Amino acid sequence: MIYSTAKKLLILMPFIFISACGAGNTSDQQWRSLELSNTVLLTLPHGKVVIELAPQFSPRHVEKFSELVKKSFYDNTKFYRVIDGFVAQAGPKNGSKKDRSVANIAIEGQFSTDKNWSFTLVQKDDLFAKKTGFKQGFALAYNDSNSAWLTHCSGTLAMARSTEPNSASSHFYFVIGQSPRYLDKVMTIFGRVVYGMQHIQAIQRTSVIEGEYAVDSRDYTPIISMKLMSDVPKAERIVIEVENTESTKFTERLIQTRARTSKFFYQKPPPVLDVCQVPVRSRLVKSQD
Amino acid sequence: MIYSTAKKLLILMPFIFISACGAGNTSDQQWRSLELSNTVLLTLPHGKVVIELAPQFSPRHVEKFSELVKKSFYDNTKFYRVIDGFVAQAGPKNGSKKDRSVANIAIEGQFSTDKNWSFTLVQKDDLFAKKTGFKQGFALAYNDSNSAWLTHCSGTLAMARSTEPNSASSHFYFVIGQSPRYLDKVMTIFGRVVYGMQHIQAIQRTSVIEGEYAVDSRDYTPIISMKLMSDVPKAERIVIEVENTESTKFTERLIQTRARTSKFFYQKPPPVLDVCQVPVRSRLVKSQD
Repeated sequence: MIYSTAKKLLILMPFIFISACGAGNTSDQQWRSLELSNTVLLTLPHGKVVIELAPQFSPRHVEKFSELVKKSFYDNTKFYRVIDGFVAQAGPKNGSKKDRSVANIAIEGQFSTDKNWSFTLVQKDDLFAKKTGFKQGFALAYNDSNSAWLTHCSGTLAMARSTEPNSASSHFYFVIGQSPRYLDKVMTIFGRVVYGMQHIQAIQRTSVIEGEYAVDSRDYTPIISMKLMSDVPKAERIVIEVENTESTKFTERLIQTRARTSKFFYQKPPPVLDVCQVPVRSRLVKSQD
Repeated sequence: MIYSTAKKLLILMPFIFISACGAGNTSDQQWRSLELSNTVLLTLPHGKVVIELAPQFSPRHVEKFSELVKKSFYDNTKFYRVIDGFVAQAGPKNGSKKDRSVANIAIEGQFSTDKNWSFTLVQKDDLFAKKTGFKQGFALAYNDSNSAWLTHCSGTLAMARSTEPNSASSHFYFVIGQSPRYLDKVMTIFGRVVYGMQHIQAIQRTSVIEGEYAVDSRDYTPIISMKLMSDVPKAERIVIEVENTESTKFTERLIQTRARTSKFFYQKPPPVLDVCQVPVRSRLVKSQD
């Protein structure tokens, strides 16, 4: 259990507080494999990206998105709203038949938690929430109530919408800059990039500053293809494992990171962690043959 | 004065608190031009980047960096340490004659503030500091003591160093991910990107994950040239103006941003701002002919 491990470590490092809440799925497995049917391979002209979906938090959005991916809905669509330091958004041509063909999805900005719910605590009294932490690789926040929510860290995948809360359909965005946490809860996050984030960062920006020429829409970055990894031929699969955020190793890493024990820190920074600045690492098990 | 403007707006929006501290260089000028001698043009193979230097905060680092730029020291050096979501670092070959030719610079992680010092307040009780805000376009933090410090937001330019605090020389880095605020004070920030940040984001990553092949150093992104804008022929200059963070317009924008009055926010986010998530906008006055 994370909790007892944390207690043991606290004896060694009495000034460092870190623990998990409740009885979680604690494990000594440092790495976790991803289910192929829960993983998406996004092929861009300049590189391949792997996304882990989050059906445990946003089931309706994952179901709809997976269904669209399965029918190659996104192939040849473009990233048409790309703002440096903010988001890269893609989808079918606004108002087109294809666009209108997708029914709206009810928002899933939060998910219910019961008294047995647990997560790996990262920080109390974060600027935007009472607590932040991780659950199954996803960064989240929690206010000690009966719900929690995924947080808009860089690399998260969320569904765009218009003014109405339940108006998301097929347009999605990746966060590519400093976490816009003010979008937490009011948007539905349903996945995160686990491989190839540098290719998401290299998507052609479509937004210009005052005084610049508009970017020609023919230069917008297209999606070559998007497939569930389970539908990708074996030889072309990219197999990724991610850090198990419920593992004792991960909890130990949080403690180490927060303590900043390296001599490099001749002055200690405040003993706090920004949940969006703590990477959940991936490793490559198999690249494309 | 920002202060009185803020008070007037407070009458209209009693629940939104925002103000500037002390008597600043408040102005109705929404935009501020950059001094050519205080601006750097960085040419990468895939695009041009403009940097504003910060001699008012880190004079020794700016003096040394400008001197190196003036002698074309960085031309043909490479970004040899590029970690997605963290930093893009460049400099001469480690331990080379060129590398050893540059004397160390004493750290400037903080700067002194006297009782007349002022800044544009963004947030109280930020996770890492008592207050955050802006001064002359630069994001900073302040603990109500006699010093303040620039913060590691995405796009900031800082000098790398080894374990000793005063060991910086010529190696520099750009922040390219979620702000690593734990580096505040212990590193010297001395500039920020004001144009072309997407090209910094597109620099070849050199760091790989477990299971990946190392990146061939011949593929590292080189610096084609780095010049003070005052040394660039007129026709090739990129002239940028940046938002004047001491202007009433900017203060009003902070108030608006924090209030999230758009109907899009059917649930209001907490009325807080992350100083590294508030863009200080640029506009292009003249591109290259």
